[in-house]
Amino acid sequence: MSDMTSTADAPRSPGRPRSIRADEAIIEATLDLLAEGSTIEALSIESIAARAGVGKATIYRRWAGKDALLLDALRRLKGILAQPAGHSVRDDLVLLVGAIGKNVDPRAAKIMPCLVPAVNRSSDQFQLYQNIIAPRRQLMREVLRRGIDEGVLRADIDVEVTMALLTGPMLIQRVLQWNPDLDEQSLPERVVDAVLEGIRTR
Amino acid sequence: MSDMTSTADAPRSPGRPRSIRADEAIIEATLDLLAEGSTIEALSIESIAARAGVGKATIYRRWAGKDALLLDALRRLKGILAQPAGHSVRDDLVLLVGAIGKNVDPRAAKIMPCLVPAVNRSSDQFQLYQNIIAPRRQLMREVLRRGIDEGVLRADIDVEVTMALLTGPMLIQRVLQWNPDLDEQSLPERVVDAVLEGIRTR
Repeated sequence: MSDMTSTADAPRSPGRPRSIRADEAIIEATLDLLAEGSTIEALSIESIAARAGVGKATIYRRWAGKDALLLDALRRLKGILAQPAGHSVRDDLVLLVGAIGKNVDPRAAKIMPCLVPAVNRSSDQFQLYQNIIAPRRQLMREVLRRGIDEGVLRADIDVEVTMALLTGPMLIQRVLQWNPDLDEQSLPERVVDAVLEGIRTR
Repeated sequence: MSDMTSTADAPRSPGRPRSIRADEAIIEATLDLLAEGSTIEALSIESIAARAGVGKATIYRRWAGKDALLLDALRRLKGILAQPAGHSVRDDLVLLVGAIGKNVDPRAAKIMPCLVPAVNRSSDQFQLYQNIIAPRRQLMREVLRRGIDEGVLRADIDVEVTMALLTGPMLIQRVLQWNPDLDEQSLPERVVDAVLEGIRTR
């Protein structure tokens, strides 16, 4: 297999040539292998290189190792972070809750649950997983704190538990199909309204 | 391997001899194979029989097939259903929420997350999974309805969403270790109190 950098090099900030096309191929290969059932442990730079049609050196020029590559690949899979408009606390929460577990990429449904045992087995994988979800938690935390500052939400609410109340129902429904009697479409609004009922200023 | 029924037969209601010791060995073998990483699809009556040291016929005398055996094995793994005392709605909810994702058997942490992809792939597995969790949902539903009848909870609350609010945070924290900043020990009480704040009679 030929190294794609030779045909599609592009300038890169710290001076080293970088191929966006090779990056794409490497990330796609990583996601394909995971979606086909490879565990994180079994995934190797060698197998990714072979699948992407690049040399191992090409991967190591771009990523420090497997964990850095996985982080980028899984971030890509999870899509772009939803951006709250900042006008209404309720609207912002409905947007953020609606984005939970909603993966545009069909490979995500195969890849994400399989990460759980890996995450529980290894502290490296746990860190990788936290690196992906921490920014999403932070967005929600900021909306709640803004609500408190604006006097829409009570100042004494338990912010971390409120985040779990907003996130948990959507996640168990979308990932585990927890309760067949729950309508997924209306769930973000119903969850946000039920939670707001307990935390809004009276 | 000898068929254990020959040494440990015991009377059984519909008249057929039944060995409790063989039952145990078969269920333990099933859970061991799953905990060691076998997928539900890969699991066969043959491999279970070999592991348990019984003949395939012994298994088929007790269970109609793999799904019936799996249901019994996974029920065993999840432990006995928590029984609400029926005095205080808050105490009953704390008990039920505290039991969520709390598996006494250490094999459960390895087995349960791996079920998710199987559950999403097959409607048989989805039914199996629902058969295990539906009775737990029903216990919680009954406590909430009792609270409404007793006037402790408002009559207009969304019972199914409330169940998801009570279950989701505990499940994502215990199974996914969702937020390292959340203390698992105090979570059941904090979740129940936060939810009650929104649903209690005012």
